[in-house]
Amino acid sequence: MEKTKKILLTERDIPHQWYNIMGDMPNPMLPPLHPGTMQPIGPEDLAPLFPMELIKQEVSAESWIEIPDEVRDAYRIWRPTPLYRAYQFEKLLDTPAKIYYKYEGTSPSGSHKPNTALAQAYYNKMEGVRKLSTETGAGQWGSALSFACKMFGLECEVFMVKISYQQKPFRKMLMNIWDATVHASPTDLTDAGKAILKGDPNSPGSLGIAISEAVEVAAKDGSTKYSLGSVLNHVLMHQTVIGLEAEKQLEMAGDFPDVVIAPFGGGSNFAGITFPFLRHNFRSGKNVRCIAIEPASCPKLTKGQFRYDFGDTIGMTPLIPMYTLGHNFLPAPIHAGGLRYHGAGAIVSQLLRDKLIEAQAIQQLECFEAGVKFAGAEGILPAPEATHAIAGVVREAMRAREEGKSKTILFNLCGHGYFDMSAYQDYFSGKLVDHHFTDDELYANLRELNTPIPA
Amino acid sequence: MEKTKKILLTERDIPHQWYNIMGDMPNPMLPPLHPGTMQPIGPEDLAPLFPMELIKQEVSAESWIEIPDEVRDAYRIWRPTPLYRAYQFEKLLDTPAKIYYKYEGTSPSGSHKPNTALAQAYYNKMEGVRKLSTETGAGQWGSALSFACKMFGLECEVFMVKISYQQKPFRKMLMNIWDATVHASPTDLTDAGKAILKGDPNSPGSLGIAISEAVEVAAKDGSTKYSLGSVLNHVLMHQTVIGLEAEKQLEMAGDFPDVVIAPFGGGSNFAGITFPFLRHNFRSGKNVRCIAIEPASCPKLTKGQFRYDFGDTIGMTPLIPMYTLGHNFLPAPIHAGGLRYHGAGAIVSQLLRDKLIEAQAIQQLECFEAGVKFAGAEGILPAPEATHAIAGVVREAMRAREEGKSKTILFNLCGHGYFDMSAYQDYFSGKLVDHHFTDDELYANLRELNTPIPA
Repeated sequence: MEKTKKILLTERDIPHQWYNIMGDMPNPMLPPLHPGTMQPIGPEDLAPLFPMELIKQEVSAESWIEIPDEVRDAYRIWRPTPLYRAYQFEKLLDTPAKIYYKYEGTSPSGSHKPNTALAQAYYNKMEGVRKLSTETGAGQWGSALSFACKMFGLECEVFMVKISYQQKPFRKMLMNIWDATVHASPTDLTDAGKAILKGDPNSPGSLGIAISEAVEVAAKDGSTKYSLGSVLNHVLMHQTVIGLEAEKQLEMAGDFPDVVIAPFGGGSNFAGITFPFLRHNFRSGKNVRCIAIEPASCPKLTKGQFRYDFGDTIGMTPLIPMYTLGHNFLPAPIHAGGLRYHGAGAIVSQLLRDKLIEAQAIQQLECFEAGVKFAGAEGILPAPEATHAIAGVVREAMRAREEGKSKTILFNLCGHGYFDMSAYQDYFSGKLVDHHFTDDELYANLRELNTPIPA
Repeated sequence: MEKTKKILLTERDIPHQWYNIMGDMPNPMLPPLHPGTMQPIGPEDLAPLFPMELIKQEVSAESWIEIPDEVRDAYRIWRPTPLYRAYQFEKLLDTPAKIYYKYEGTSPSGSHKPNTALAQAYYNKMEGVRKLSTETGAGQWGSALSFACKMFGLECEVFMVKISYQQKPFRKMLMNIWDATVHASPTDLTDAGKAILKGDPNSPGSLGIAISEAVEVAAKDGSTKYSLGSVLNHVLMHQTVIGLEAEKQLEMAGDFPDVVIAPFGGGSNFAGITFPFLRHNFRSGKNVRCIAIEPASCPKLTKGQFRYDFGDTIGMTPLIPMYTLGHNFLPAPIHAGGLRYHGAGAIVSQLLRDKLIEAQAIQQLECFEAGVKFAGAEGILPAPEATHAIAGVVREAMRAREEGKSKTILFNLCGHGYFDMSAYQDYFSGKLVDHHFTDDELYANLRELNTPIPA
């Protein structure tokens, strides 16, 4: 029998602190700006939407932030997650590379999202908040937050993009099981929704509209706050439990990664697994390559521009310094719904600008092909988002073979694909296609932006 | 923080042997009979369908059977599975009982079924078999065997009940991902299928027809064998890894169960978790209560008759001594597809006859209510089959409260509900109903049976 396949930790090994990369970044990020005044925003600008503890985390320079006991306690439902050595996949790829994957699909909602959802629900609960509102597209984030609110006794109101609401009744049902109220957005419950419906009563909705509705609900109700599943600094930080556990597990295997690979949507998946390893680059001269794999249908890291832009498509949020394709950019309708976001969180954007991380854009057919290969070798069916990391791993593993060099690759298998079977169905039936943007299509939104470009 | 929630084992703790209860049963089972001669069947009768090693296991009196290294190696993909202490569920139920659950939903196909699928695929591979054929209703077993065949390089041909094939395309897709060929049964590929289609070109199929087709394919092709997911002795034995791991995990928690509860379909789920504890009843005077929870829509254990009957609805298999409602009994169309089987495996039937185990029948509304409660407390969404165990646990926990007595309850959370969201949807929308059979409906099939009744 081969060496250990699953490297497991006990509940005692769940990290006691999140790692806050802001304490170690060589160059600080530019401040977010208030779109009205163009001045840096302060805590008071965020207070209507977020509890004070999360606002503090958003700007903290402390390298380590204590994880509350109650959050660690809830993490125990599925954490620590297993780290796998991909023996069978290595064999299939005939590569000298050693491949490890951290499997986040064992969480109740099936992805890494509850790592931050639980933390956010907890801090809101502590500050007397009654209800959290949020938006969801494909449903991963909405179900994670529903689960978290159920665990901490908060109400949860989810604005789900109408077309997804209709096409993904099972994701909606999962949220209902955890007692969340789920609306097909646009609704007539908010001014934003009403305005849209007035213009188009049959609007299929969009993530941008759903965000506007969720934010409006929170802004208008003193006992409701808003919750976001990626992009923001505190969200990325909560995900570092992934990489911190993986570091300990690799140590148990006597290993350390040369390359760490993760899918890229807004940044939380990528940050979660790479930031704890970047810390060794910053602090002890290691040279771990951290590669973000974004879908070619939404290539903000590889083809976007670094500039101030809104986090949402409507233009309600502060202006964030980010790699972006423009907040009105419409990604091609790929199946990795979690990666269809026009911009990258501020931290990741600064790191990319400083050439401290790498990015690659990969087409979805290559990703699905890699994902099916992986499921055949390792048995686990990856979510479409996760197949992006796998496709990146295949490229690295092939390169290792060509170069005849061993290297240690770690990637984030961020979720399972049980809720994404229709995507696989489309793949097998030949309905999936790649998307090739013209420059015009890619840059039209950027050209129209009148937000500042940092010097 | 409370005491450990998840009790984990390492890969080294995966059992090295399966526990064969036949070596310890106080009364041996009656032999299966050849339906033509009414004589006990011998190995040669089974040889066209099964490899010799499994036929040997089917009749072995050895208490422990070595698990081949290759099977243990494949088990490592997800085994050992976690044992959870249900702290939150206990709190919700306000019970003095301690509740533990063994969670088998972390397997690639999402249930306990791969425990035997891998073993069966391995032994067939070792004896030069090229392909396995099988039937599947809801798809749990078909996907488990597809996964197992992919792992050991066998072809897999699945006859899936046509109505399920149409209603559950995602389960079919999962089998395809692992390279299985899946047919909507009845097909025109077999004589059995052709005969049915001739009578009714629009037949929705049935498990019985699908079995006939799968058996025919195996019987006619020297390089193909047949594989079954429950009922048979060797299948039940392969599942004992569940209980053996749980025993070790409870020991780590300083505990031992007073009651062990599992859902009941054909017996493999129940056997897997209870047999290793029954061994302590047989060998060292323990008195663990083992309770099988069957759906009230298919109450063979609580309302069936102990007699010889066919394992399939067509009447092709040997006659098995079992509690049965008659092999033509049509269970109500409940959502727990895995429990809709007319009879109980021979071992479990003998144990029930000897009053060494208990059985309860529970209606599906009570089960779904318990399952939703559980998901809200523990975060994990149970498969409809698993909710039967949970409903049984709720009853025991309530009784403990009434009696003011603590007791330790262990149950088998045999699979997750991610593929069963439409069942939950029906539950929430009020479409699910309970099924109350008249005695006439229940016993009509038994009265028509002309198979022997054991003295």
